Amino acid sequence: MISERLKKQLSAGSQIRKMFEEGNRLKAIYGADKVYDFSIGNPDLEPPHEVSDALKELSNNPTPGMHGYMSNSGYESTRSAIAAKKSAESGLDIKSDAICMTVGAASAMNDVLHSLLDQDDEVIVIAPYFMEYNGYISNHGGKAVIVQTDDKFMPVISSIEAAITPRTKAIIINSPNNPSGVVYPSSLLSELNEMLKKQDHVVHVISDEPYIDLVYDGMTVPCALKYIDNLIVCFSWSKSLSLPGERIGYTLVSPKNEDYADLTAAIVLSNRTLGSVNAPAIWQRVIEKSLNAKVDVSNYENRRNLLYSNIIDAGFDAVKPNGALYIFMNTPEGLTDDKFSEICASKNLLLVKGSSFSRPGYCRLAFCVSESTIRNSRQAFFAIADELGLSHRASL
Amino acid sequence: MISERLKKQLSAGSQIRKMFEEGNRLKAIYGADKVYDFSIGNPDLEPPHEVSDALKELSNNPTPGMHGYMSNSGYESTRSAIAAKKSAESGLDIKSDAICMTVGAASAMNDVLHSLLDQDDEVIVIAPYFMEYNGYISNHGGKAVIVQTDDKFMPVISSIEAAITPRTKAIIINSPNNPSGVVYPSSLLSELNEMLKKQDHVVHVISDEPYIDLVYDGMTVPCALKYIDNLIVCFSWSKSLSLPGERIGYTLVSPKNEDYADLTAAIVLSNRTLGSVNAPAIWQRVIEKSLNAKVDVSNYENRRNLLYSNIIDAGFDAVKPNGALYIFMNTPEGLTDDKFSEICASKNLLLVKGSSFSRPGYCRLAFCVSESTIRNSRQAFFAIADELGLSHRASL
Repeated sequence: MISERLKKQLSAGSQIRKMFEEGNRLKAIYGADKVYDFSIGNPDLEPPHEVSDALKELSNNPTPGMHGYMSNSGYESTRSAIAAKKSAESGLDIKSDAICMTVGAASAMNDVLHSLLDQDDEVIVIAPYFMEYNGYISNHGGKAVIVQTDDKFMPVISSIEAAITPRTKAIIINSPNNPSGVVYPSSLLSELNEMLKKQDHVVHVISDEPYIDLVYDGMTVPCALKYIDNLIVCFSWSKSLSLPGERIGYTLVSPKNEDYADLTAAIVLSNRTLGSVNAPAIWQRVIEKSLNAKVDVSNYENRRNLLYSNIIDAGFDAVKPNGALYIFMNTPEGLTDDKFSEICASKNLLLVKGSSFSRPGYCRLAFCVSESTIRNSRQAFFAIADELGLSHRASL
Repeated sequence: MISERLKKQLSAGSQIRKMFEEGNRLKAIYGADKVYDFSIGNPDLEPPHEVSDALKELSNNPTPGMHGYMSNSGYESTRSAIAAKKSAESGLDIKSDAICMTVGAASAMNDVLHSLLDQDDEVIVIAPYFMEYNGYISNHGGKAVIVQTDDKFMPVISSIEAAITPRTKAIIINSPNNPSGVVYPSSLLSELNEMLKKQDHVVHVISDEPYIDLVYDGMTVPCALKYIDNLIVCFSWSKSLSLPGERIGYTLVSPKNEDYADLTAAIVLSNRTLGSVNAPAIWQRVIEKSLNAKVDVSNYENRRNLLYSNIIDAGFDAVKPNGALYIFMNTPEGLTDDKFSEICASKNLLLVKGSSFSRPGYCRLAFCVSESTIRNSRQAFFAIADELGLSHRASL
């Protein structure tokens, strides 16, 4: 009696549940410290002190109405503060009404897609990509059209252009990328914009930016607002401030977007009718007081370095990620990601198959696990390499 | 370039925006204390001290991971506490997995409808009803089928039965009701259940219960779980604890529901893919510590009494509401609700037309406005009655 759509999704979802259960099974047998579970991308740093200070201040000094309804788009003061910050970053004149506060980035994406899509409209996604996009798109009657990147996981503009049809409403970009960790350079964003300007109809670019503050090697992520006109940003503080359980983010429509007035109104309406109504009041206030704070990114960078060394030193290959929380390693020559992940599991090492990101031949490892787990896993990588007859590049 | 669906919704929504703007216009001209705005149902009491105490305690004693991800259904401890409370109320053995914590009741309703509906499935709504249901249903491809109540706003079982087709997936009930304030007796819930058991296929009852703690005259609201088998409860603490801006509620599938296993799994999946991911972490913790608290209902009851007296004493008619935050008054003989609301606005008295709840011939007045506004409005009700030639039932 549940819907056909949900029946399909429930059976498809069981693969992830199986892995989760497999992790628990292995931990019960071998002990938690002997299982190297790189499957789950759960930000594990505590929020910076600005966040806990702001939360304390608000809780200890309650003001009347602080837990009441506000506009569906959120507090004006919060949106103004974000608009000022994003104006400074982009050089654009961003007004507070460009922004709608949301229940995290997942809710932001649903609001935007609900606003854009009619039945059978198409949305281009760039593989490898976060598999939840499929659900966000189909929720609102749309179809995901998958375009592959090159072997460094960089989008190829001509491939994207070839996938555009009269029904293409939007392209989702995600940089730093989950699962590959690559950061798109500004030149690529400019090329994308130029190509889209030549099309017969408006194709919006939805920039999913939850990892924008998690970037390493002294890099900065180019601000998509600077380079793409018909842009809609979806953001979440889940990673930047380590608040994934609290659900706070926003949508931002570029002032250069040709559908600015309709889109900003439609997103606020979608935010109401899809059931969020508004983003949690207290977290909007906390965010306003913590806008310039950030988690300790060097901590993640250190763990990325350790895990990357394990992979490379053991004899495997991977593009070194400049951002996000994942390494998307190549599966060794001649092995499917299915078979490779089976071999890894036999050594108590858990990862997610690239097929789950529409990119077979790779596997994703999340490095937001304890440093000791990463250090202890080194021998497992070496043992797997031995079993496959790979030559190590360094000693254990 | 926004979707056709949203274009329609945006133009339909403009009626409410107009009223809001009309209120602001009148307040600018006459002063806020000379405008009697009964149009908006915004709970205006502060949360009980248990809530602010719990929030302080959590903020002042942070624990690692307290803002992190948890299961998409919410914390086990929070769900267990709610399950125990609802088991005691219903006499049923409710397990924690019956419950999914949600971003308020609006999100709960979307999760449930997304889980149940395929394209063109039907959902019966009982007029007068909260107009947002239309959006929640159409979001997931469904169609609202409207069934009218009797002149005391009580559902008529034979009318509901006549509206059932092979495509009927669910019936939404809402007691205490927005906008009428009536409370459905247990006998009616039993009759509904008996009628549904005779049908060829399962028709779920979605009980939208945000007002269940706002009940007056010493009444208690019959627990729908006791009387209806294929039940799904949608609840929010927006009114019970005056937390509408924080977005916290739940879905609860009755252990008697024939689709229990599929439904509980589908709702958790919908909660994830529709973008909530999970209900805000800190509010789940606060709720767990405040489960037996409630706002000062006598305060609302007092204001209901004052507003009801104004209406009746001036010479108008209304069913006295036993719950919720509204009086759904009859428009005087021979006047449409359109015309009547115009006359009221000319005396600076703002209300919502019954047509907006699919029940013309009535108007909704929210009594969650200041006591002084209600007292000051008395002369406006009398002036309007005079203009219409009605006889007063008491003196001004």
